[in-house]
Amino acid sequence: MPEPPFHKFATSLPGTLMTPHAAYDELVARSRQRSLLSGCIELLGWDELTQMPSGGVESRGQQLAYLKGLLHEAWTEPRLGGLLGIVGQSPLVQDVDQPAAVNIRHWRREHDRLTRLPRRLIEELAHVTTLAQQHWAQARRANDYGLFQPWLARIVRLKRDEAKCVGDGDNPYDALLHEFEPDATTTDLEVLFAALRTHLGPMVASLHEQPNRGGSTNLRQEFPVTAQRALLETVATQLGYDFQRGRLDTTTHPFFSAVGQGDCRITTRFNPCDFREALFAMLHEMGHALYEQGLDPSHAGTPFGESLPLSLHESQARLWEVFLGTSRPFWQYFFPQTQRLFPETLASVQLGEFHAAVNRLQPGANRVRADAVRYDLHIMIRFELETALVAGDLHVEDVPSAWNDKYREYLHVEVVSDAEGCLQDSHWSAGSLGYFPFYTVGNIYAAQIFATIHREIPELEQLMARGEYQPLLAWLRENIYRHGQQFTAADLLRRVTGHACDHQPLVSFLSAKCENA
Amino acid sequence: MPEPPFHKFATSLPGTLMTPHAAYDELVARSRQRSLLSGCIELLGWDELTQMPSGGVESRGQQLAYLKGLLHEAWTEPRLGGLLGIVGQSPLVQDVDQPAAVNIRHWRREHDRLTRLPRRLIEELAHVTTLAQQHWAQARRANDYGLFQPWLARIVRLKRDEAKCVGDGDNPYDALLHEFEPDATTTDLEVLFAALRTHLGPMVASLHEQPNRGGSTNLRQEFPVTAQRALLETVATQLGYDFQRGRLDTTTHPFFSAVGQGDCRITTRFNPCDFREALFAMLHEMGHALYEQGLDPSHAGTPFGESLPLSLHESQARLWEVFLGTSRPFWQYFFPQTQRLFPETLASVQLGEFHAAVNRLQPGANRVRADAVRYDLHIMIRFELETALVAGDLHVEDVPSAWNDKYREYLHVEVVSDAEGCLQDSHWSAGSLGYFPFYTVGNIYAAQIFATIHREIPELEQLMARGEYQPLLAWLRENIYRHGQQFTAADLLRRVTGHACDHQPLVSFLSAKCENA
Repeated sequence: MPEPPFHKFATSLPGTLMTPHAAYDELVARSRQRSLLSGCIELLGWDELTQMPSGGVESRGQQLAYLKGLLHEAWTEPRLGGLLGIVGQSPLVQDVDQPAAVNIRHWRREHDRLTRLPRRLIEELAHVTTLAQQHWAQARRANDYGLFQPWLARIVRLKRDEAKCVGDGDNPYDALLHEFEPDATTTDLEVLFAALRTHLGPMVASLHEQPNRGGSTNLRQEFPVTAQRALLETVATQLGYDFQRGRLDTTTHPFFSAVGQGDCRITTRFNPCDFREALFAMLHEMGHALYEQGLDPSHAGTPFGESLPLSLHESQARLWEVFLGTSRPFWQYFFPQTQRLFPETLASVQLGEFHAAVNRLQPGANRVRADAVRYDLHIMIRFELETALVAGDLHVEDVPSAWNDKYREYLHVEVVSDAEGCLQDSHWSAGSLGYFPFYTVGNIYAAQIFATIHREIPELEQLMARGEYQPLLAWLRENIYRHGQQFTAADLLRRVTGHACDHQPLVSFLSAKCENA
Repeated sequence: MPEPPFHKFATSLPGTLMTPHAAYDELVARSRQRSLLSGCIELLGWDELTQMPSGGVESRGQQLAYLKGLLHEAWTEPRLGGLLGIVGQSPLVQDVDQPAAVNIRHWRREHDRLTRLPRRLIEELAHVTTLAQQHWAQARRANDYGLFQPWLARIVRLKRDEAKCVGDGDNPYDALLHEFEPDATTTDLEVLFAALRTHLGPMVASLHEQPNRGGSTNLRQEFPVTAQRALLETVATQLGYDFQRGRLDTTTHPFFSAVGQGDCRITTRFNPCDFREALFAMLHEMGHALYEQGLDPSHAGTPFGESLPLSLHESQARLWEVFLGTSRPFWQYFFPQTQRLFPETLASVQLGEFHAAVNRLQPGANRVRADAVRYDLHIMIRFELETALVAGDLHVEDVPSAWNDKYREYLHVEVVSDAEGCLQDSHWSAGSLGYFPFYTVGNIYAAQIFATIHREIPELEQLMARGEYQPLLAWLRENIYRHGQQFTAADLLRRVTGHACDHQPLVSFLSAKCENA
């Protein structure tokens, strides 16, 4: 039985008497402890959204605040600074791609970032966002933005405090981006999104003028949830998701949760009138989970064995949800099974019609249900509103009207209610300002990686049509998952695809979707 | 919104400059933090047994070990000793029933106990028992004691180390008892159990000679689990269990878990051939949970607002399971509903026959399914084996034969397999040596309390027959729950019943069960 990483730390103070190797070993042990604590925090969050009775919310908020405070303390102890000082000057950091150098780099960055944040702020954010998520859900059910507005105001205030404390980058929003992606800047994202929008704008305008694309098969019919669940389990298993190391639950908002080594859970939500909602949400979260399940366990608990930040992680989710999951070979294999599960609705439907219906391009106010062509415009709207909120250019009371104006402008959509509009996503209530833009960066990466996979596995479509996903999974493990954070997302992308971040593959993929629709 | 208890502690070192009130306030804040951490530990344990995929076991063991290590550290910090020194000499401890004096007494005891235990041992126990529970479950399924034996050996070794470190009492087993009940001694329990056995022995011998008691209605028939679940939810709600502050799940071994203020969960297990198994296990756990739900929230997170240790807690569980749940007035109200839920099995059964069948006295090797008369003999067997294991008088390899010998001697039962014998309970795999005897102490207390309730609520049976449980629950809240740990279990018992621990009411109750059977 392996020993848990709880050996007593050397009590000698860091200094010249401590060797770099001893200091490094202590940092590894501390990193593993922090990873255990993060897993506990993940579990508390997962439980809150899947199992917890409503009466538990106040104490859950306090528990999360306390554990996040402990995590902050563990990352910011002065001793950690001393240890990082010892190893940072040593030969351990010379070979930049080696585990020690990679780990030290990440620990240093995290230590520096968190040292600038007071524990009190971390705790208050954890506590407020736990309660805010309940108020947001209530506001959404009641279609009453006013119930959520004071909580959003409080969260925006706290996030601005956070940005001020962290103080990275030229723009306060940069500091919030860095929680999710260390090197991102608001300006780079603006440039990237503007370039992408020059292509998406005309595509969407043209779709708007010819609204009846994507075949006539109606997929908004009755799909019993039990059969939907069976479909999801079959698909996830076939694609390689390991249920011995995970589970699938139902939540208002789908998410994945890395609760521990060997325990990465996913959730989805079922719409009894449209099986696509649960299936594609599951594929998305499963993409995240396959990445987690494919990390190198021998480096567990250290950055070298952990997944890359958000943009690359989202690329792995969007790869399965959009690029693989809406493809024809995917449905060549899974359509007959789907048909058997929903005989009343699908018995007389042909694969071609069905595939066209799955890929139907339709306007709508909902991001999660958006088609592939419109999806990134939903993201850009959020990005613009968030940057304005953080800059103080948009007041929380004006969010609904600003939201609705942007939907009209970007997507030619009239938002009929706040529940379907600015209350649709849980991110703000969870304090995740700065998260949204990486869905689009993830899409861009996913398109680049998808094009590379096509090149490197020429028989991909034949394999998929036979339900054989092992070669694809092996490729992803070899080229992406197993590297952990050895490289930055940008470097890994370049190694894998031969190119820096480039929106053209996504534009090509979406153009083809428009043409085939 | 109430502020969470995370204010920064005063940085002044404890000393004469710190006032007792300031020291006390800091102790309260620290106590609340520890209570948050205990809730997190509870959740990790609950999740492990209800939700966790099998792949998560190793990391869950490490997470539990880490959090328990943190909890230990929080209780044993030298600063805590300093703070306790300041308040311990102050007027705060003069009025012994007041919250401050009660809290200080409990903190002091816990601090002293845990200071004697090394963190390493706490962590190792947490880690080993998490894994051992999986091996025990496997051994039980395979009916192979050999799979569990090395784990039991390891646990006994660790518990003996624990006893040696704690070093309370004359007998090493005393130190283990004190984890669950601070003032218990092996000798007192031996005396109490011997006295009780002088009554139970002859009762069981007489039952053994006349085995066909308790009516002829067969309750071992088909009881669909969905209907059983509906019954349990109806009963629990009617009795006053608040599902907004709890939930009911299915596990191999029923338990309750106080995950947080406003979140006390219970579990049960369903036997599709006997609805009593799930129902009575639920009543037991619900009794624990009603106690937790009835504590005074204004003292949450401090001993004054927490439940008493095991014997009193078990009395509250056994009160519902045995004393109320098998009574005729209970079934006067619930039998018609039960009949409607299981029409095929119960439509033609009369209340009297049904009640007799529920109270049927039958020998068996299983503790949880034991009848009320035999139950405490199952406990005495475990108590004797545990004391022998800890004393080194019994070796782990001899447990199955010693177990089977005792069952023959005490209960006239031949144990047919280790799965049904010494592998039946999860307590040893969880490291809970010293837990079992308090089931019987709890039974004794419950009988005393039940007799008092009968005296103080003379219309109890009529109320129960009408399904009116509010007066009973109000009595329990007023007399037991709301006091938290203001009094010791022994003192509370004396206040409530007018008597010290006395096995006679239990003997009278069980004699009546024998006569009516």
